[in-house]
Amino acid sequence: LSDDELAAHFSDAAEVRAMLCVEAALATAEARVGVIPTPAAERIARAAVEARITPESLGEGTAGAGVPVPALVAALRAALDDEAAPYVHWGATSQDIVDSGLVLRLRSAVVILEARMTALIARLADMAEAHRKTVMAARTRGQQSTPTTFGLKVAGWMMPLVTHRDRLQAVRTRLLCLSLGGASGTLAALGDKALPVEAALALELDLGLSPLPWHVQRDGVADFAGWLSLVTGTLGKMGQDVILLSQSEVGEVRPGSGGGSSTMPQKSNPIAAETLVTLARFNAGQVGQMHQAMIQEQERGGAAWQLEWLTLPQMVVAAGAALRHATDMVDGMIVDPARMRANLDASNGLNLAEAASFALAAHMPRPKAQALVKQACEEVADSGRPLMDILAEKTDVPVDWQAVADPANAVGPAGDLITRALRAAGR
Amino acid sequence: LSDDELAAHFSDAAEVRAMLCVEAALATAEARVGVIPTPAAERIARAAVEARITPESLGEGTAGAGVPVPALVAALRAALDDEAAPYVHWGATSQDIVDSGLVLRLRSAVVILEARMTALIARLADMAEAHRKTVMAARTRGQQSTPTTFGLKVAGWMMPLVTHRDRLQAVRTRLLCLSLGGASGTLAALGDKALPVEAALALELDLGLSPLPWHVQRDGVADFAGWLSLVTGTLGKMGQDVILLSQSEVGEVRPGSGGGSSTMPQKSNPIAAETLVTLARFNAGQVGQMHQAMIQEQERGGAAWQLEWLTLPQMVVAAGAALRHATDMVDGMIVDPARMRANLDASNGLNLAEAASFALAAHMPRPKAQALVKQACEEVADSGRPLMDILAEKTDVPVDWQAVADPANAVGPAGDLITRALRAAGR
Amino acid sequence: LSDDELAAHFSDAAEVRAMLCVEAALATAEARVGVIPTPAAERIARAAVEARITPESLGEGTAGAGVPVPALVAALRAALDDEAAPYVHWGATSQDIVDSGLVLRLRSAVVILEARMTALIARLADMAEAHRKTVMAARTRGQQSTPTTFGLKVAGWMMPLVTHRDRLQAVRTRLLCLSLGGASGTLAALGDKALPVEAALALELDLGLSPLPWHVQRDGVADFAGWLSLVTGTLGKMGQDVILLSQSEVGEVRPGSGGGSSTMPQKSNPIAAETLVTLARFNAGQVGQMHQAMIQEQERGGAAWQLEWLTLPQMVVAAGAALRHATDMVDGMIVDPARMRANLDASNGLNLAEAASFALAAHMPRPKAQALVKQACEEVADSGRPLMDILAEKTDVPVDWQAVADPANAVGPAGDLITRALRAAGR
Amino acid sequence: LSDDELAAHFSDAAEVRAMLCVEAALATAEARVGVIPTPAAERIARAAVEARITPESLGEGTAGAGVPVPALVAALRAALDDEAAPYVHWGATSQDIVDSGLVLRLRSAVVILEARMTALIARLADMAEAHRKTVMAARTRGQQSTPTTFGLKVAGWMMPLVTHRDRLQAVRTRLLCLSLGGASGTLAALGDKALPVEAALALELDLGLSPLPWHVQRDGVADFAGWLSLVTGTLGKMGQDVILLSQSEVGEVRPGSGGGSSTMPQKSNPIAAETLVTLARFNAGQVGQMHQAMIQEQERGGAAWQLEWLTLPQMVVAAGAALRHATDMVDGMIVDPARMRANLDASNGLNLAEAASFALAAHMPRPKAQALVKQACEEVADSGRPLMDILAEKTDVPVDWQAVADPANAVGPAGDLITRALRAAGR
Repeated sequence: LSDDELAAHFSDAAEVRAMLCVEAALATAEARVGVIPTPAAERIARAAVEARITPESLGEGTAGAGVPVPALVAALRAALDDEAAPYVHWGATSQDIVDSGLVLRLRSAVVILEARMTALIARLADMAEAHRKTVMAARTRGQQSTPTTFGLKVAGWMMPLVTHRDRLQAVRTRLLCLSLGGASGTLAALGDKALPVEAALALELDLGLSPLPWHVQRDGVADFAGWLSLVTGTLGKMGQDVILLSQSEVGEVRPGSGGGSSTMPQKSNPIAAETLVTLARFNAGQVGQMHQAMIQEQERGGAAWQLEWLTLPQMVVAAGAALRHATDMVDGMIVDPARMRANLDASNGLNLAEAASFALAAHMPRPKAQALVKQACEEVADSGRPLMDILAEKTDVPVDWQAVADPANAVGPAGDLITRALRAAGR
Repeated sequence: LSDDELAAHFSDAAEVRAMLCVEAALATAEARVGVIPTPAAERIARAAVEARITPESLGEGTAGAGVPVPALVAALRAALDDEAAPYVHWGATSQDIVDSGLVLRLRSAVVILEARMTALIARLADMAEAHRKTVMAARTRGQQSTPTTFGLKVAGWMMPLVTHRDRLQAVRTRLLCLSLGGASGTLAALGDKALPVEAALALELDLGLSPLPWHVQRDGVADFAGWLSLVTGTLGKMGQDVILLSQSEVGEVRPGSGGGSSTMPQKSNPIAAETLVTLARFNAGQVGQMHQAMIQEQERGGAAWQLEWLTLPQMVVAAGAALRHATDMVDGMIVDPARMRANLDASNGLNLAEAASFALAAHMPRPKAQALVKQACEEVADSGRPLMDILAEKTDVPVDWQAVADPANAVGPAGDLITRALRAAGR
Repeated sequence: LSDDELAAHFSDAAEVRAMLCVEAALATAEARVGVIPTPAAERIARAAVEARITPESLGEGTAGAGVPVPALVAALRAALDDEAAPYVHWGATSQDIVDSGLVLRLRSAVVILEARMTALIARLADMAEAHRKTVMAARTRGQQSTPTTFGLKVAGWMMPLVTHRDRLQAVRTRLLCLSLGGASGTLAALGDKALPVEAALALELDLGLSPLPWHVQRDGVADFAGWLSLVTGTLGKMGQDVILLSQSEVGEVRPGSGGGSSTMPQKSNPIAAETLVTLARFNAGQVGQMHQAMIQEQERGGAAWQLEWLTLPQMVVAAGAALRHATDMVDGMIVDPARMRANLDASNGLNLAEAASFALAAHMPRPKAQALVKQACEEVADSGRPLMDILAEKTDVPVDWQAVADPANAVGPAGDLITRALRAAGR
Repeated sequence: LSDDELAAHFSDAAEVRAMLCVEAALATAEARVGVIPTPAAERIARAAVEARITPESLGEGTAGAGVPVPALVAALRAALDDEAAPYVHWGATSQDIVDSGLVLRLRSAVVILEARMTALIARLADMAEAHRKTVMAARTRGQQSTPTTFGLKVAGWMMPLVTHRDRLQAVRTRLLCLSLGGASGTLAALGDKALPVEAALALELDLGLSPLPWHVQRDGVADFAGWLSLVTGTLGKMGQDVILLSQSEVGEVRPGSGGGSSTMPQKSNPIAAETLVTLARFNAGQVGQMHQAMIQEQERGGAAWQLEWLTLPQMVVAAGAALRHATDMVDGMIVDPARMRANLDASNGLNLAEAASFALAAHMPRPKAQALVKQACEEVADSGRPLMDILAEKTDVPVDWQAVADPANAVGPAGDLITRALRAAGR
């Protein structure tokens, strides 16, 4: 349920590394603007890379202060000479370092998520194209409704991902902003050099600038959390469909490499599909936490801020894991068009009742057509005979019942819809 | 905790009205494309307006079918002659009518929300401007940290609302899309006229077109729910601040028209501010429900769809109520700059410790400066004497302690930050 | 999705009625203890019944004060002569009246919930008994695993309800406690008569006494909310099973009176079952709100308290609606033992693979037995021939393959388990 | 935010150990009942202890199967001779092993939680006793209301913990039950020895027996999750109070060992108190996940089951961490009775307005008394003079205004209430 590549960005070590990177860039930016001496900045930047500051060494300090920054700053200073040491962390507050460090790591994570999403979209686009004409039963509220195509179903899995990719551009722009506010969000300690330092640091870290320091304006991270949960929600829907399609009695799709059972040799469980549902429900449960954490107090409230720490990394990892599992699942998925057709046929035409009703309605009032079809449907249930045969007997209107009985004729503009989705996906 | 103007859009009557509007527009669009006869469409459109179809009359049918549409269609047909009646609801499914009707109502709701948001932004902008130089204590983790200005605090309340207004443009575009998919999302019943009907209906209702029917692609509504909760989250933060600022022991802000107590004559409770927190936590708790509801089954799952019905209207009303209460609260708010200054002064300069430390650091190594200030702070706590007096005694470095002691000199570029926020708000 | 009988207890009118009942009982108790004059108490009690105080008349006052009590007290006093009027609400605070009034209404609601639960348990017990020997496929992770009985499945739906009924006794005892704390939870205004008044009022209202006034100790209501969600969770599991069992391709259970479709004449949707899932997910989403609301501030925090108002009534109604729908669903449910058997047989014995493997293991090492069965299972998949036929050919161990092939022999002690569950239910 | 002692029970290694323990006990129980040979059982039990099966070695198998059991069983068999190996896991399914293993670990965790809770209750009882007469301002909706005592406040923190400890007994009994159902919850593979094996295994593991196998009846774990969140909710309320009491402007309580600031030398942050709020909101957000996971599918659904894995361990650890932090916080807390008294006095008697109003009401109608007091309160606000002085001037009724002005006389039966709470706590 985890994801090593993404989890690596949220390890204690990665956090320390990112914070050191921010401290180094801060010193560099401040030297550039003339707030601290350039040699000091250079030594700070070098020490931030070379000093071997481990998360373990910061443990006690972190527990005491509630944030790792005071201990980190002390450790970094300890690695410097007396001249440079005082210029570490000049004018910044702990939250500046923690949040800017978080943003750096989220930037890397977003690159991974976007690449995985693009890869998954490509695979789903291929699959939608390949199954453009694979007819199957649509199911609403658990019941076969009318025919559709597997290609359209897959296009429906893909389409929201394409939209999420678009959404990401705006979400990312608002997320990847420098956090620099100083003790209380006024940048007071940097005096009249504050805004130049802010600009130089944003440039140095290649981050955006928010109009105000965002210590207690958490909409950027909350909105990103919502995006993560939209992504897993879409994948959860795909997983739910695969679980349903791979049921013993449906059997239209088989997980390529399912889970074996410890006691039942015949089983092949849709593990990946289930995992997608799990991760979707997990993130749906977490997204509200990030919204609760928006209720910050005054210029900083520790309770809400810490709640983000417990929540956001897990959500990123869940989204990454879901994208990975989804891609694996699509890669290994075995589609069984014959079973799809057999399941359609097993209804004796009941899922073509709407088509029959529309065919009849060309020749008689619709209510009469519907009543006739409803009556014929009951006879199908009783007799087990095909609907179209019964309807052909019941009326003498000139309907080509054989054509109506072919589900491939009953999927309407499904092909055009697939094309529209593929086009939206950039195909 | 509710809001009459917004709740009106989610009454049973409003729902019926919206669905009738969709049925009328569907008939009109289908006539335009040549799917049904124009006279029938005209009569359907007229009946949709004139027929007196009440929610009560649909109650039994709704309970039976789980959706009101079959009963609604029957009632509309009953109001028509035999020629026009069959053409009602031609080629559509219940979900098309329910969801398109929902979107129409959300469109109206969004107009109200946006107008309220704009009005609130304007008031907050005025207040930020007016209190540009009102010095007060910033507070982090419940403790006075350094001085800030009330104007900057207000700008911080406003800024995310400005961003939410920007976010709304993209959210709205994706939300306000026609839902038309027919029984299974293929539009099959409309044959080769399906896409023209879809286009004509979108035009008729002035709604957008999604690449695919979105019966089971709920990211548009889920994303909108997230936006609603972002809005209430921002207002909840404002409410939380006002609660804290209006505490007896702080008293920097007074709710203009607070709640009286049934037993304590002296009290004036910050009801509106509390309500903002309540509504923020409420929506934060609901947003996950909308994400859970993304896990749709196949071509339609009733359970997840119904979960939206229980959730989204309440979230819209909560957001609207929060915007209204926030505006009232801002209108009635009494700000007490003298008390703000008194609270600052009560710390005997402790909240200027950072400023003192930076002032000293111009003349000695920063660690030494900090140690000196820390020691002086302890003496302040013990003696109750002002920090700057103690520091002046402890060192002979040429610092203008009187200037350092003036909090107005310790808010850094707060004014520039306010200007940036006002500019972002369009001032 | 609502429930009129339960919702009636949470109408504004019911709230006003309950609060008047508390005010009347308070006066009566205080007279009994000698705090206020008996004639005044009698007039207050009468006025509480006779005065026509409508929720509408309290609207403005409620909006102003954030609670309806000040306006209610004023209205009650207005209905009294000058002598009795001052003794209304003597020594109490708004929250005493609101919370005690809530508890009175919850008491009525719990009676309804318990009765519905008992009725549902009885029906499920009957059904479990009736289908004690109805063999069907068990399904794990969507795949047929081994045979089970429908009776055992139904017993599994029932069993947690029996436990919930037990849980209710302790939950109720802690929930149905008088709230009386006065302005700040000290009962100070009642002086040395405080505890006698408390005891007399508890007696008068037939409510329990908590060791401390529970203004800000919300575990009783939060625990009750948890119980409500446990109930809906259990019913949601039942609904989920019925949705899955009633799928077109499974067809083992049919909702007796499902929802018709507006366009597909053949459909019969499992509306009630879906509603159970909806209500389960709804309450699961709300229960956390009630836990968030435990984080009360000092002696009273309005934000958290109001959050309860938005949450708890909806949860009670959801639980009541779920119990009602579940009972209706069970009443109308059509079970199809023949289809159950046919679905079992359709696997060609694959769901008896475990049984075959255990039968073989009596004659050879288990791994060898399992390997043999796994291989035979693959041949079943390829050939479509029954598993036992293939195994009979593959080995000459003296296994009675016909007996192994009978699923009725493969349900182990399912009957004994049903008996245990029925006994736990009091049968 | 974590807790090493509790987290240790939810490591991969602990999980493997617990599952091996269950496999060993299963073999032992089965031998006792005569299902498998005693020598085989003995060797299995020994191998379960001696075989060095690491979580890492099961990683690939777990990823493939979705549960670690098949790989674990294979590894255990590999450590055994051919005679004993086949008898490993006889008649069980993966979920039996996973869930029984979970229950064993939860049993250990509950012991720790209960011990911590008892220790915390003892400390709070001591503190309530010690501050029985420490007068302070009660605060409702952020406003000083009337006097209370710090002892009563602490008793209010303690009381729900006492109730939670009572609740735990019933929750634990239902939680700590053996899970044994075999492939589909029928125990079929164990034939007529199934129930004896079940009984013997429960005895062997010292676990309770549920009436039915609880594979898909998750109320026991969901209810436990609710209990965990009730515990953290209560501690979160305590944390919230401490945050508010330790604000600069209130200063009645100081965290003994708060967090230092990286930039502000004078600060001492209420880290532990904030952490309590964080953990309370965290668990409140998780509890709904466990309720969502009750909606199991048929005889096993992987998605819901996995959701528990992501949720329950974190909740246990959060509850444990919260209990630990709360105890540390109470140990280090510095209470400042002088500041409490000073804050009371700063209101110039406004928080005694109710007391004054009741004192006057002994001599005039209550509304008149209240009106008089309200008017006097306004004069206090304007003039800064003490309320009782103003009232003494305004009336000539024989009230002992000095006595009324002493807050110690205005806490009613607070002492008796403390005694009641201490008695409930077993003092």
